[in-house]
Amino acid sequence: MSLPITMKAAVLYGPNDMRLIDAYPVPEPGPGEVIIKVVACAICGTDPDILARGWPNHPPYGEFVFGHEYSGTIAALGPGVTEFEIGERVVVEPHKGCGMCENCRDGLYTTCLNYGSLEKGHRHYGFTTNGGYAEYARIHNICVYKIPGEMSFEDATLITTAGTSLYAIRRAGGFEGGETVVVAGPGPIGLMGVVLARLMGAGTIILIGTRPERLELGLKLGADVAIDLTQENVVERVLALTSGHGADMVLECAGTAQSAADAVEFTKKSGRIAFVGVHSKSPIVPLNARKITLGNLTIAGVRAEGQRSVARALTVLSQNKVDITSLITHTFALGDIHRAFETAEKRLENAIKVVVKP
Amino acid sequence: MSLPITMKAAVLYGPNDMRLIDAYPVPEPGPGEVIIKVVACAICGTDPDILARGWPNHPPYGEFVFGHEYSGTIAALGPGVTEFEIGERVVVEPHKGCGMCENCRDGLYTTCLNYGSLEKGHRHYGFTTNGGYAEYARIHNICVYKIPGEMSFEDATLITTAGTSLYAIRRAGGFEGGETVVVAGPGPIGLMGVVLARLMGAGTIILIGTRPERLELGLKLGADVAIDLTQENVVERVLALTSGHGADMVLECAGTAQSAADAVEFTKKSGRIAFVGVHSKSPIVPLNARKITLGNLTIAGVRAEGQRSVARALTVLSQNKVDITSLITHTFALGDIHRAFETAEKRLENAIKVVVKP
Amino acid sequence: MSLPITMKAAVLYGPNDMRLIDAYPVPEPGPGEVIIKVVACAICGTDPDILARGWPNHPPYGEFVFGHEYSGTIAALGPGVTEFEIGERVVVEPHKGCGMCENCRDGLYTTCLNYGSLEKGHRHYGFTTNGGYAEYARIHNICVYKIPGEMSFEDATLITTAGTSLYAIRRAGGFEGGETVVVAGPGPIGLMGVVLARLMGAGTIILIGTRPERLELGLKLGADVAIDLTQENVVERVLALTSGHGADMVLECAGTAQSAADAVEFTKKSGRIAFVGVHSKSPIVPLNARKITLGNLTIAGVRAEGQRSVARALTVLSQNKVDITSLITHTFALGDIHRAFETAEKRLENAIKVVVKP
Amino acid sequence: MSLPITMKAAVLYGPNDMRLIDAYPVPEPGPGEVIIKVVACAICGTDPDILARGWPNHPPYGEFVFGHEYSGTIAALGPGVTEFEIGERVVVEPHKGCGMCENCRDGLYTTCLNYGSLEKGHRHYGFTTNGGYAEYARIHNICVYKIPGEMSFEDATLITTAGTSLYAIRRAGGFEGGETVVVAGPGPIGLMGVVLARLMGAGTIILIGTRPERLELGLKLGADVAIDLTQENVVERVLALTSGHGADMVLECAGTAQSAADAVEFTKKSGRIAFVGVHSKSPIVPLNARKITLGNLTIAGVRAEGQRSVARALTVLSQNKVDITSLITHTFALGDIHRAFETAEKRLENAIKVVVKP
Repeated sequence: MSLPITMKAAVLYGPNDMRLIDAYPVPEPGPGEVIIKVVACAICGTDPDILARGWPNHPPYGEFVFGHEYSGTIAALGPGVTEFEIGERVVVEPHKGCGMCENCRDGLYTTCLNYGSLEKGHRHYGFTTNGGYAEYARIHNICVYKIPGEMSFEDATLITTAGTSLYAIRRAGGFEGGETVVVAGPGPIGLMGVVLARLMGAGTIILIGTRPERLELGLKLGADVAIDLTQENVVERVLALTSGHGADMVLECAGTAQSAADAVEFTKKSGRIAFVGVHSKSPIVPLNARKITLGNLTIAGVRAEGQRSVARALTVLSQNKVDITSLITHTFALGDIHRAFETAEKRLENAIKVVVKP
Repeated sequence: MSLPITMKAAVLYGPNDMRLIDAYPVPEPGPGEVIIKVVACAICGTDPDILARGWPNHPPYGEFVFGHEYSGTIAALGPGVTEFEIGERVVVEPHKGCGMCENCRDGLYTTCLNYGSLEKGHRHYGFTTNGGYAEYARIHNICVYKIPGEMSFEDATLITTAGTSLYAIRRAGGFEGGETVVVAGPGPIGLMGVVLARLMGAGTIILIGTRPERLELGLKLGADVAIDLTQENVVERVLALTSGHGADMVLECAGTAQSAADAVEFTKKSGRIAFVGVHSKSPIVPLNARKITLGNLTIAGVRAEGQRSVARALTVLSQNKVDITSLITHTFALGDIHRAFETAEKRLENAIKVVVKP
Repeated sequence: MSLPITMKAAVLYGPNDMRLIDAYPVPEPGPGEVIIKVVACAICGTDPDILARGWPNHPPYGEFVFGHEYSGTIAALGPGVTEFEIGERVVVEPHKGCGMCENCRDGLYTTCLNYGSLEKGHRHYGFTTNGGYAEYARIHNICVYKIPGEMSFEDATLITTAGTSLYAIRRAGGFEGGETVVVAGPGPIGLMGVVLARLMGAGTIILIGTRPERLELGLKLGADVAIDLTQENVVERVLALTSGHGADMVLECAGTAQSAADAVEFTKKSGRIAFVGVHSKSPIVPLNARKITLGNLTIAGVRAEGQRSVARALTVLSQNKVDITSLITHTFALGDIHRAFETAEKRLENAIKVVVKP
Repeated sequence: MSLPITMKAAVLYGPNDMRLIDAYPVPEPGPGEVIIKVVACAICGTDPDILARGWPNHPPYGEFVFGHEYSGTIAALGPGVTEFEIGERVVVEPHKGCGMCENCRDGLYTTCLNYGSLEKGHRHYGFTTNGGYAEYARIHNICVYKIPGEMSFEDATLITTAGTSLYAIRRAGGFEGGETVVVAGPGPIGLMGVVLARLMGAGTIILIGTRPERLELGLKLGADVAIDLTQENVVERVLALTSGHGADMVLECAGTAQSAADAVEFTKKSGRIAFVGVHSKSPIVPLNARKITLGNLTIAGVRAEGQRSVARALTVLSQNKVDITSLITHTFALGDIHRAFETAEKRLENAIKVVVKP
């Protein structure tokens, strides 16, 4: 299989200036790299931010192709790659550490100390190097995973989301089995957190949110109780559901100040909280530090789909028949990417995950 | 509800001398204790050993009622017990630590350093104090758990088994999700290990055994592959199933020298093995120590249903609809307990779990 | 040895109303308890709060003897106590869990879910039951430890402090050896944190504070660098000392909003922070939640000297010749306890730890 | 600084055929690599095995320079290396993982699944690629560490040994502080284990061995008790020293069947054992599997100086003034390497560590 010389791509030319280019150069694979013919690329919650403001160390405007939740088929192999064959169905994770810093050597590559340094080998595909809103994408083979037989390309794009939810569970200490888990924020990561908590032995799963249709979907995906925070006092309700002791584990996926503060209040003494939601607009959040200390609480920040969580999530999901397709509400052709972004950002027609197909 | 003065009980009078007594005194509850009206008591693999040889620090022959996997209803409450109400459906775990030694204070009560010391408060119900092959049984309330709504008394007797399987998973480091797990030995603990591994996010589950009907049951309960060790080279087969690398985790439930030795050979570098099977007859087992060291393997012994695993397993099983009833192949009245033991010990009619109903 | 009927004691009669009583009844030991003839009792940072405002579930005013960091000799043994002999030199830890709740059974007794419930067996000596500002004190033997040969009674009173510092290290993930540790707040817990970090294999230890004499003492006790936060930008300085990456571990012992906020800023990606300082006056603290998430940080609250940390700290300190006596700046007779409290609270004459000797 | 074209080197031409070559080609550094001017290279216990039998995937006889515990100065930098400067004093660790396999990505690079594969980037310097018994050596910069100011080149060669001892402590669960540790086998790794256990907060340290001078050295380096197994029953003695309960942690460094078997017998219930000693001659060792299971023991194999333990050990040792120089009993010039090997292998003149200086 030979690669074409040019391809269609959505290229960032500046803040909020994404252009569809017909003849963007197809990348060539270097040592250890592969070229993927992109079939589907999902819009991540971070993508509208990148569209609007760029990202630290992003490729130059005019060349920058973003998009990091993509799947497709292997189109070309760089020197030394023996792990894949042309035509295999694959999906990617966006973080590749430098492999040399202390964090990378400890397996913590999403917190690589050489973030953004191309010379040291760090790559954040779709952020600091090009990604998947294009017909072809170049990526190092250690970020590539084979899609298990029956999983669709579209479902596979959810695997970075699932990896993040799974990493949140890991960062919050994992399950011993049977624990009460609160998931706050029924966005894609929260809903996938419900799915994975269910598949990994949680006891009662409590989902907190505001929109009835999201809460209902959460109940279908495995939550036992859904709390509409606009209707109920969530702290009181969680305590009531847990004999007054609070939840064993909380996955805070909303990324709002109130949600973070509530989590501290309704977590059991010696319980654990994962902060997954990114507090983009108001990073400084008032928290009850006295409760953290006297309650022996643990708060664990969660940087993306760390420590091979994408690989693990892929296996967990493929071993179990769960309907994650319901998270994908919209699909657009690459030519309609502007409308895809509008749909995702404004959550038009109750959009959850929006997928672009080059 | 008032307790009768005497009850039917199966009492050990000496090695292999179990007698059915019609008028054994019904115990009275001390502080923190409850009396349970026993509905069902399963025969554990250890019970035939107790029948044949007693147990260190067992109650005097002529008074000794054994049986430790039982469920029933609360019949009386001792002073200070507010956790339960008369009539509640409950199931027990057999270990109560002294609560004072270093291990108990670390939560490791199945390895209480005051094992067998009644004065220090240690209890091993059905072993060093009386148990459940009787109409009524006395037990401390911290060993008692409420049976979730739809679970039957018979299924509930499996919870000590499930707690042990779950503790094995914990002792072997738990799952990150998606890992390849080998379960060696499809006895009750092994089969329950398959069930729990499936419910807690394992990837491929490989079951090793000798009897086709057990292996088939294991496949129904969630195993992906079954290996008949009389037909295949298990080490080669497991390596073949794992790209030559070996399994991430092994639950060694067979308790044979060969099974333990094989586990060391087919475990992945840096993988983990739980030794759950008790090597009763031949405790000294030849193991490849060089492989353990150079392979960075971990072997974790598993002492019973430690660290609240019964509570956790109860929740995991009650949250998921799994057919564990298929593990209970036979039920006998207390009056038929001798036949029940014969059935269990000789595995008559492919017996797996045999339950006695007082 | 027979106990006298009455003793001298400092008794709380109300907020800020502590009276010296000559003929307070000497307690009698119940099952598992001992009576200690108190030799020394240190004033904890919490004690002035108790003096001023009491404590949830405290014994009735008029009977309430507080003080929880005490040492002495065994004066009487309750029924069943075989662990000690009359006359032995001992020191205590103040928390005794109920032994029955989920947290206690997991070894997390400082976060007992039956806190303050005498009926369920919980005790917080000097808080919810009587303590050590008296000639004799009653306590359960599981809270009592033998003082190693050469350690003085006065030094032994520091062991609850040391246990808290050690628990902070444990809660923050322990050391792998060689890590850079920041200790913020050179109070007794912080300074003891410096001592223990040094004794347990820390790499560079950085101490942050405001008072030159405390910082100097910290350097003597094992810190490598001392930062006066009134003179320097601590965030910049810590980053400069750590190649721009930040500290591996932070023990936040100051309990101020600024100190907590700074910790989040100067901790390395994937680093860990222990919140030990109790934010008594302003519990709500603004923290950079975005940094916690994107930095993959862990914040672990530290509830007192949990998980047998007192026992561990006692051994660590007794195995190593460290001059912890320098932390004890003042000693008063029980009759001078009001002056002792004034000295401790106002830090008169640069007071660090103040000891009362009944 | 320019490199010479040829150098002196000790080259393996076949089993037990090591030749001193005057004009061996000096290697050139590839991307990420450095050339070190070797000052000192210690003989590891594995080196006589390599001399006698080679190693899987070793470089061709006639080209194979072994030796992996070396220090020196940076003589040349390959493309992209910014971490070092010419002339810096450095020491190395021998394992470099492929960086791509599951184990490497989890930080477990000493158990790289691509062991021995040069194409995949794995290197085991002095084993599968050339090492340090030469004037110059080539190595990837992620295996290189700066020597702290006052540490000598000779002492620095001990850092792989120290890293292995430290990894053993980590693999055995680390210290909570104050635990009783048995070190079995006072070879270099065992003695360094004593040093590190002392520096990291162990309680009582018990050293087991046979040769009085080694035991005496162990006492000087920090052990509290030394047991000569030719004179005493070690199991009884360890139990006697631990109130009958056994040791919390055991570092089994002897690598003999008896030592491994004894460790299982004298470890506390729920205690942990590290298998560090490589059972080269008799890999199959009879162990009490019943005790492992019922005692809830953990046995952790230790593959070399894993998970950045060399870096950590270097910092721990440099922060503390410990006399590790006493472990280096002999020093030889490269020209005397045959005599150096004889001294090390036959332990002539009570040799412990023997250093070769090119």
